[in-house]
Amino acid sequence: MDSFTPTAADRFSFGLWTVGNPGRDPFGGPTRPTQDPCHLVRKLAECGAWGVNLHDNDLVPFGASAAERDDIVSGFKRTLDETGIVVPMATTNLFSHPIFKDGAFTSNDPKVRAFAINKTMDAIDLGVELGATTYVFWGGREGTEADACRDPQDAMKRFRHAIDFLCEYVKDNGYDLRFALEAKPNEPRCDIYLATTGHMLHFISTLENNEMVGVNPEVAHEHMAGLSFVHGVAQAMEAGKLFHIDLNAQRIGRYDQDLRFGSEDLKQAFLLVRLLEGNAGNAPYTGPRHFDAHAYRTEDEEGVWDFARGCMRTYKILVERTRAFDADPEVKDLIRVPTDAALDPVLSNSYSAESVAALRSMDVDPDAIGAAGLGYERLDQIMCEYLMGAR
Amino acid sequence: MDSFTPTAADRFSFGLWTVGNPGRDPFGGPTRPTQDPCHLVRKLAECGAWGVNLHDNDLVPFGASAAERDDIVSGFKRTLDETGIVVPMATTNLFSHPIFKDGAFTSNDPKVRAFAINKTMDAIDLGVELGATTYVFWGGREGTEADACRDPQDAMKRFRHAIDFLCEYVKDNGYDLRFALEAKPNEPRCDIYLATTGHMLHFISTLENNEMVGVNPEVAHEHMAGLSFVHGVAQAMEAGKLFHIDLNAQRIGRYDQDLRFGSEDLKQAFLLVRLLEGNAGNAPYTGPRHFDAHAYRTEDEEGVWDFARGCMRTYKILVERTRAFDADPEVKDLIRVPTDAALDPVLSNSYSAESVAALRSMDVDPDAIGAAGLGYERLDQIMCEYLMGAR
Amino acid sequence: MDSFTPTAADRFSFGLWTVGNPGRDPFGGPTRPTQDPCHLVRKLAECGAWGVNLHDNDLVPFGASAAERDDIVSGFKRTLDETGIVVPMATTNLFSHPIFKDGAFTSNDPKVRAFAINKTMDAIDLGVELGATTYVFWGGREGTEADACRDPQDAMKRFRHAIDFLCEYVKDNGYDLRFALEAKPNEPRCDIYLATTGHMLHFISTLENNEMVGVNPEVAHEHMAGLSFVHGVAQAMEAGKLFHIDLNAQRIGRYDQDLRFGSEDLKQAFLLVRLLEGNAGNAPYTGPRHFDAHAYRTEDEEGVWDFARGCMRTYKILVERTRAFDADPEVKDLIRVPTDAALDPVLSNSYSAESVAALRSMDVDPDAIGAAGLGYERLDQIMCEYLMGAR
Amino acid sequence: MDSFTPTAADRFSFGLWTVGNPGRDPFGGPTRPTQDPCHLVRKLAECGAWGVNLHDNDLVPFGASAAERDDIVSGFKRTLDETGIVVPMATTNLFSHPIFKDGAFTSNDPKVRAFAINKTMDAIDLGVELGATTYVFWGGREGTEADACRDPQDAMKRFRHAIDFLCEYVKDNGYDLRFALEAKPNEPRCDIYLATTGHMLHFISTLENNEMVGVNPEVAHEHMAGLSFVHGVAQAMEAGKLFHIDLNAQRIGRYDQDLRFGSEDLKQAFLLVRLLEGNAGNAPYTGPRHFDAHAYRTEDEEGVWDFARGCMRTYKILVERTRAFDADPEVKDLIRVPTDAALDPVLSNSYSAESVAALRSMDVDPDAIGAAGLGYERLDQIMCEYLMGAR
Repeated sequence: MDSFTPTAADRFSFGLWTVGNPGRDPFGGPTRPTQDPCHLVRKLAECGAWGVNLHDNDLVPFGASAAERDDIVSGFKRTLDETGIVVPMATTNLFSHPIFKDGAFTSNDPKVRAFAINKTMDAIDLGVELGATTYVFWGGREGTEADACRDPQDAMKRFRHAIDFLCEYVKDNGYDLRFALEAKPNEPRCDIYLATTGHMLHFISTLENNEMVGVNPEVAHEHMAGLSFVHGVAQAMEAGKLFHIDLNAQRIGRYDQDLRFGSEDLKQAFLLVRLLEGNAGNAPYTGPRHFDAHAYRTEDEEGVWDFARGCMRTYKILVERTRAFDADPEVKDLIRVPTDAALDPVLSNSYSAESVAALRSMDVDPDAIGAAGLGYERLDQIMCEYLMGAR
Repeated sequence: MDSFTPTAADRFSFGLWTVGNPGRDPFGGPTRPTQDPCHLVRKLAECGAWGVNLHDNDLVPFGASAAERDDIVSGFKRTLDETGIVVPMATTNLFSHPIFKDGAFTSNDPKVRAFAINKTMDAIDLGVELGATTYVFWGGREGTEADACRDPQDAMKRFRHAIDFLCEYVKDNGYDLRFALEAKPNEPRCDIYLATTGHMLHFISTLENNEMVGVNPEVAHEHMAGLSFVHGVAQAMEAGKLFHIDLNAQRIGRYDQDLRFGSEDLKQAFLLVRLLEGNAGNAPYTGPRHFDAHAYRTEDEEGVWDFARGCMRTYKILVERTRAFDADPEVKDLIRVPTDAALDPVLSNSYSAESVAALRSMDVDPDAIGAAGLGYERLDQIMCEYLMGAR
Repeated sequence: MDSFTPTAADRFSFGLWTVGNPGRDPFGGPTRPTQDPCHLVRKLAECGAWGVNLHDNDLVPFGASAAERDDIVSGFKRTLDETGIVVPMATTNLFSHPIFKDGAFTSNDPKVRAFAINKTMDAIDLGVELGATTYVFWGGREGTEADACRDPQDAMKRFRHAIDFLCEYVKDNGYDLRFALEAKPNEPRCDIYLATTGHMLHFISTLENNEMVGVNPEVAHEHMAGLSFVHGVAQAMEAGKLFHIDLNAQRIGRYDQDLRFGSEDLKQAFLLVRLLEGNAGNAPYTGPRHFDAHAYRTEDEEGVWDFARGCMRTYKILVERTRAFDADPEVKDLIRVPTDAALDPVLSNSYSAESVAALRSMDVDPDAIGAAGLGYERLDQIMCEYLMGAR
Repeated sequence: MDSFTPTAADRFSFGLWTVGNPGRDPFGGPTRPTQDPCHLVRKLAECGAWGVNLHDNDLVPFGASAAERDDIVSGFKRTLDETGIVVPMATTNLFSHPIFKDGAFTSNDPKVRAFAINKTMDAIDLGVELGATTYVFWGGREGTEADACRDPQDAMKRFRHAIDFLCEYVKDNGYDLRFALEAKPNEPRCDIYLATTGHMLHFISTLENNEMVGVNPEVAHEHMAGLSFVHGVAQAMEAGKLFHIDLNAQRIGRYDQDLRFGSEDLKQAFLLVRLLEGNAGNAPYTGPRHFDAHAYRTEDEEGVWDFARGCMRTYKILVERTRAFDADPEVKDLIRVPTDAALDPVLSNSYSAESVAALRSMDVDPDAIGAAGLGYERLDQIMCEYLMGAR
């Protein structure tokens, strides 16, 4: 028990599918038994987590009867009550059953599209019943291998119709629920539509009810494509669209790894925590700190909880380190933005003839500015030393 | 002279910087002499190109006097008149001079930001004088290595201010000019802001004059990140935002290669030409077919023109092949979308209680749908055979 | 039936695990039923394949009794006899059972290492009984996520001991069998030891019986890391170490896709076929043309055979195209190596004082050589046109 | 001045081309003045470095006369004497001049190959004169874009001849000098021959004087391809072939970045330092700790020295952290290798009938072994906490 031990105030959440992952991969079967959802919730509570998230079929099996469903749900709610664990987010499994093998909302087959919408309505009802206020859409099968099978513009239109329809369903039912769309570039499809958080943000801007739809960026998904996760999250935050986040770790240019948070690319993790916590003067992210990761296949159940504790502990270590970094006077000095009495108004106000005149007549020595050092090696080294606890 | 020989009707354009590239790279100096812009225009005309594009400093050196500038421009215009070559697009060099070493519109230094806006106003004037109706922004230096140097949300705000300001400048001057923003994930910066066409499309949706701003996606830039270029372009087309395009070739996960169009990843090139030409029933792209590529460093001037002819020839071969593919009855059959009298209205109309009821009561056998084959291996193999001219 | 229809003379082979792949992936269950091995062999024969390869457990389930094993094997041999299909290669499944979750030959646990060697001896016996003359080792689980768990030098030593031991087992039993080692950089482990064909070739050079051990390079595995597969295969061929090959297709920087041969990166496929067939004047590869790929998850059984036919057909199209390319007089001219009466002896003979003197006194104008064009844009464009059947 | 301040005993070295890098990149000119080599040596001494390395043309310009060369060299030697800085390694620039645009030792043109060998003999003489005992070969231009231009097997043979020849030159002159070959997958060529340290190790095994040739692996070059640098270095160490090393940092799947050591992928840097320092019980690497990196283009000269100090400081911090990690009793416990009295002899001795019998009769419960957890999440988390100075 130290300052890095998690508490409910940290708002850490895990998916049932993360700590319940049995260790199957494309080359081998499970190495751990499947766990009862209620057991997972109790163990999460012991570890210091605050919330649990789920796909419909993480809790209620595909094809369960209404009675079976209600029975399972009431048992699960009792466990939530006993443990104090909340369900901040829910989502739909639109990828495991073979009916979704060529997509759900974007399938060429109207029956598949309709089935996906219907399944999602049911799953929204379930999520709301459990208390969820965020509903995630990950379109993992919405893509192609044989790309000629469908005009990608049609895919976009079909996906838009589905989200527009489901927004209305939420409103019609008076649910207090926002949507968060999650992008991924590939796997399990060769190419997945709306490949990055950027593509998803634009797609959202074309929705009828775009005010109730934001993004759920995932570290691993953007790192697969080698993109700056921090920049993508910042773009979402600046637009008021960071509704949820999936924290984990990933090597660039590989299969989807979903590793323990901070276990790869610690520098990006540092920059991400700094951004989320608002340490650089920006407004912090206030939603759940959700871990969408799972333990190595080498682990038994004890290893799973080591994994879960590790995610939370590393996050809290980084919170402390980023605060110290931004409080350092040398850092403040290195990132201080210069002011210019003549130009700052031009650069913050709207276009005007006066602004153009000021620009046309300004006196700048480009060679002198180009020759001045910016101190960024020093800045980055200081950051690395804070990250390593060596300053 | 055959059916693949380019004509003005094909609207092929090249940048002065492409056919004029002298073959310098990070490990060695130029292998070809720098060419006079007027010579390049004459040779492009001989090769069958229709247009030429330029950065301000491709034509007018940085720091040239007004008289020098006017002299150069009038000579260039004479050559355009003589050859019939047009200037459909122009852009600003905001990356070569050391003043831009930490960005232009997003620099922390107000002097640099002001200098960049001023330089762009001049360059817009130049482009318009030469007849350009599209103006490209590639923010190659708008990024970071030491990411703590600036809140990425501030970078976004600064970039937005610059584009908003310059839109107003265009309107104020009554220019017939649209902006096309070009994304790139990295190089020459470790991370460049607004990394993909998706991020750029979203950024555009936040602009004051967003109707006059679209994108200029580049094959190489999206392929560097391993993304589907075709999907990104389709998203832009569906949104009416494909204002320009940069055609070239690139291996995934490498330095920016700018290879001859079609010389890498021919299948993606096939799918791209199919989309741009509207062969799948979609509305075609009507702007210039611009090649942003350059000859290998092993080539002399003759090799440069071999390169230019190769770009255009491969494009025209692919036009023919994609038409034949989409006219093939077996292909039509494989990609035919099934209809469903009951569900199609639900899936095309807005949300209603009737639609929900129809969905709730529909009868679907998920296992049967999941077991049915979609014929996509056959479809993709047929496509490959059209690509190889073997069918 | 045309010139691209496969015959036994083409020596095309498929793994039981390839055409028998049921379409499971990390996000969903199988979409096709598991097929009886004898059925697969009959269908392969119908498609024009010559051989079938297998892991021990593709035919004989893990843990089967000796009687069950013998019964299965005799039935399988009857089908081979009936169809004329041969078994040129066999291998061991050292990755599916949880006992191998942290490696087989490199595990820290002596029991696991011993179990793996024992299982391989059994599987070698099975392969030899079925007629195999090549035995493949793919160490898919020989790697790490938590890299501190084991000194990678110890892993190398353990792997070497196992291969040395098994070479002696083969010799002791008088088997006519060579080993072919297969590299992969990652997946299912975060990092797999001996990541590329290059690393594997070096490892082989350190073996006691290195003359009976070569490599089995796989297109997808080298392309995952973005390496030139053609260069790696050429290195193996030059060293006399290309004992077997795995043909398929893969996008760079992604999960292991095992796509239909030629369905991605056709240019690399062209160059590979050219090298294997000896069209550039080199000695051809004479072993099986083995496809280690599988049909998309969207396919039913018919799609699986479309996939298999597509692999073979594309290979044969490329054989024809590469022959035509190398027979083209312009190509011959472009790749003709210049001769130099004075220097050629120096550059082909061993070191001598005379050679040094000849080098010291030679007369070269580096600027003139540096300025001469090499015609490689023309060469590459001609190659692309042969690939597209446009020349 | 603290325990992380470098001393000569640390054997840190930098290339003249690293701290002398003027900040040019493909999109812009230099941002820093070119520095006199003697000035660089003096500043390196001030920073605490021990050695300096160089290409021939870092010190003596291409085409300098013998008198100019001798004059420059004697001045440089005086500075070395004054500062105590040594020259442990030298190399040849075979990439900047256009004569090398299609390779040096592998060029199709015998004149180019001869010129390259001759230039290297001169550069070896220079290196030896300055005291170098290691000579590096980086074949940056030995590759292709238009791959049909040359049989890659011929490239291998030519490269082998050159290295064999130069080995004899060293022996003939009685020089105390070993060669270290450096691999890189791409850039500035689309594909470079002998793409990784693995390919290079195998190539070395085919040399006549292979005992005097080892490798010089570079972090950035292996990370460009997403490979485990630690595994490649371990393979070289196990084979006694780690003759030199290039330390820097790199994001996967990008242009060659040559970033400050430890500024990307700190976990890999931790594992690398652990391996080099022999903290896991292995024999340590005893050669120079060479940094082949350069300061960001945003920096002036002061930033260059911040960069140099940062490389050395981070290395020393990691030395301390890796020692503490390996001394931790919990870590020792987690990575302890189990023993097995019956099987250990079988697994360490050569093949024998008794060993086979022991394997055939051993009693193993695969399911029980497969179900046991290995504690690797805990191990990796502990490592991350040592890295962050949080344990």
